[in-house]
Amino acid sequence: MSNIHDSAYVLENAIRDSEEFIELKEAFETVMNDATAKEMFDNFRDTQMALQEKQMQGEEISEEEVEKARQVVELVQQHEDISKLMEAEQRLNLVINDVSQIITKPLEELYGSPTE
Amino acid sequence: MSNIHDSAYVLENAIRDSEEFIELKEAFETVMNDATAKEMFDNFRDTQMALQEKQMQGEEISEEEVEKARQVVELVQQHEDISKLMEAEQRLNLVINDVSQIITKPLEELYGSPTE
Repeated sequence: MSNIHDSAYVLENAIRDSEEFIELKEAFETVMNDATAKEMFDNFRDTQMALQEKQMQGEEISEEEVEKARQVVELVQQHEDISKLMEAEQRLNLVINDVSQIITKPLEELYGSPTE
Repeated sequence: MSNIHDSAYVLENAIRDSEEFIELKEAFETVMNDATAKEMFDNFRDTQMALQEKQMQGEEISEEEVEKARQVVELVQQHEDISKLMEAEQRLNLVINDVSQIITKPLEELYGSPTE
């Protein structure tokens, strides 16, 4: 298992040193250091999380809530720093998804093989 | 991003070559090549997935269903080859969880840092 651990740490550092992560970190710190932006971003996060939780619990989401969430998204997207942060998050997410697809390939090949 | 990709492929190969993965593969093939064991295992998987789906949809799971699932688990655990497969799955899962914790550390440090 030591090979796996070693490789995982190398990958961790590659992520940490990547342009995508450094840009995300900078964008995050910019927002966190601006009280107004931080409050808007926290509010956006809270709204998203509350909706996700409801969805996971199988609770119904009202039109009113959808509309409120839409407005919050629209608001934060107009804030340049938050908008940059969200774009940086999306870019890093793509990278992480790639990584996740690569490292789960062995398992997928095993369980995805036709057994019927 | 090429560094990340390269490191991810190295990690993929480390997983593929690991004792844990090789043992899982062997245990899986043993079960798949035995018609009775395969049917029991497929039945167990189907029961688990159906329950998981219900849970995710927020649907209620009846006592009857819980009891049926418990019986299916008990049954497959008595089958030596399936039992070995389930143990091998658990061992690889621990490895994958470790990996996942390592490579998400940069993000966790960023978002988990006190910002209040």
